[in-house]
Amino acid sequence: MTIRQCSGTMERELENVTFRHQIPAQLRFSDVDRFGHVNNSVYFSLFDMSKEKYFMDVVGEDILQEICIVVANINANFLAPIFFPDEIVIQTTVTHLGNKSFTLRQRAVNVRTREVKCEAQTVMVCFDLNSNTTIPMPEHFRRRIAAYDALDVDK
Amino acid sequence: MTIRQCSGTMERELENVTFRHQIPAQLRFSDVDRFGHVNNSVYFSLFDMSKEKYFMDVVGEDILQEICIVVANINANFLAPIFFPDEIVIQTTVTHLGNKSFTLRQRAVNVRTREVKCEAQTVMVCFDLNSNTTIPMPEHFRRRIAAYDALDVDK
Amino acid sequence: MTIRQCSGTMERELENVTFRHQIPAQLRFSDVDRFGHVNNSVYFSLFDMSKEKYFMDVVGEDILQEICIVVANINANFLAPIFFPDEIVIQTTVTHLGNKSFTLRQRAVNVRTREVKCEAQTVMVCFDLNSNTTIPMPEHFRRRIAAYDALDVDK
Amino acid sequence: MTIRQCSGTMERELENVTFRHQIPAQLRFSDVDRFGHVNNSVYFSLFDMSKEKYFMDVVGEDILQEICIVVANINANFLAPIFFPDEIVIQTTVTHLGNKSFTLRQRAVNVRTREVKCEAQTVMVCFDLNSNTTIPMPEHFRRRIAAYDALDVDK
Repeated sequence: MTIRQCSGTMERELENVTFRHQIPAQLRFSDVDRFGHVNNSVYFSLFDMSKEKYFMDVVGEDILQEICIVVANINANFLAPIFFPDEIVIQTTVTHLGNKSFTLRQRAVNVRTREVKCEAQTVMVCFDLNSNTTIPMPEHFRRRIAAYDALDVDK
Repeated sequence: MTIRQCSGTMERELENVTFRHQIPAQLRFSDVDRFGHVNNSVYFSLFDMSKEKYFMDVVGEDILQEICIVVANINANFLAPIFFPDEIVIQTTVTHLGNKSFTLRQRAVNVRTREVKCEAQTVMVCFDLNSNTTIPMPEHFRRRIAAYDALDVDK
Repeated sequence: MTIRQCSGTMERELENVTFRHQIPAQLRFSDVDRFGHVNNSVYFSLFDMSKEKYFMDVVGEDILQEICIVVANINANFLAPIFFPDEIVIQTTVTHLGNKSFTLRQRAVNVRTREVKCEAQTVMVCFDLNSNTTIPMPEHFRRRIAAYDALDVDK
Repeated sequence: MTIRQCSGTMERELENVTFRHQIPAQLRFSDVDRFGHVNNSVYFSLFDMSKEKYFMDVVGEDILQEICIVVANINANFLAPIFFPDEIVIQTTVTHLGNKSFTLRQRAVNVRTREVKCEAQTVMVCFDLNSNTTIPMPEHFRRRIAAYDALDVDK
């Protein structure tokens, strides 16, 4: 599996992105490091949790039993530290639907100040664990995401 | 603090990068997810651990008492899953030294097969926790890294 | 610091314990292990988070700036596995207030089935980080906990 | 599954326990909390990792494919904090082999000072994921552990 890297235009595009899906992130004491900051690796756990919730909410709970969706690339800008116990929400949107892959944008935002703490772009690929190969995204999966996030679908 | 994103040329350049610093990564049972894969967020913990070790080995144990080095951007390509208990090493090198920021390249490699599982580029910034501003990297810090990884230093 | 272990009568006593404090636990995909179970070590993160919330809710947010409360002993019964995405609450109560130490009881409960997944008893000690010694629990701290959980206070 | 709790005699007995199995624990920067201490929940990840290694070393790598071993009770005494980057080893021994359950003792020890940072007793139960019931420990599993840790086996 060869993965091409996402291009370097993340920040500029983000201004036009609308985030419809949002969940609160419950921070744990163990998430905080020596500096009182939420550790960088925790952000990815939170984004991961939110992705899963996005799929359950938008596509339905059963989709992850059918196929495995693996991360190909993550590109994250850490804009400001998260302190415990900041009130944080994770916003998720799909910005591109390819044939076998798609692109997610996510943000960690302080609910009270509206400050964006981190923004990330994730390229994900649909994967069949049995054949160990990439597979096209199931059509009903694609349709529901496209409808939810108002996307054009690649022909 | 405004962070410009790293450009999208990571993969091509990597062919010419030499990794001098390498440590084994001890995987934990709790690192593994439902699919038997090491969870993506764990990679960042391992890269984080290895960065810290790089600084201790190259610059000396006391440097992280003096200044705080924060992550501005992480861009990671996940090339193949890590299974428990794969024998993994994390390789780290500094590829660019700026005035207040610098760029790290890291890889997770299967020791036996030499397969590269993940490669990441991290932009880090020297930060003063008291004044809450970015600061220039201390000169002896910069010199030791430049010597270790054979870097030209920005004038 | 010598720590005496809690006696082996946890389970029997628990029938008479009333849990007034309860918070939902947000599970993360990375909490789940190879068997689809929430990993044992995660329970302790959740209990930890809930303890901190208990202190903030009952004693007030500033108390953990004043003193450090360290865990001396944890004794946990794992009664049934937690599966992702079970809806779990963590219940917390203080069952004994000593001079320098106190005892917490906590449970992880499936909200829908009322099944108790795990019950734990934690002995905690008030600690001064400067002198590196145990210290008596501040009086206002003790009074608020005693009032909240209807406890007799040791004379 | 009803789990009886282990009795309260852990500390006294420990003086006579011999630990033959020992592995180094690689600490991660993300393991450290606000106080510079390794977070309590991390100890359980380290004990978990060491248990798995014990089984692989003593019983053989394939045993965990055959049966699932679940934790019924953990009783841990936290004797002194672990600081990053303390050099820590985890010692593991089986102290009792029942029919369907067995008891492990583990310690986290500072290699240089020999200080015992934490000691834990874990009761584990052999479990069949298909029938969802406890099952007797396989005989070759039992024999190898008994031989390794010089145990009498219950008749």
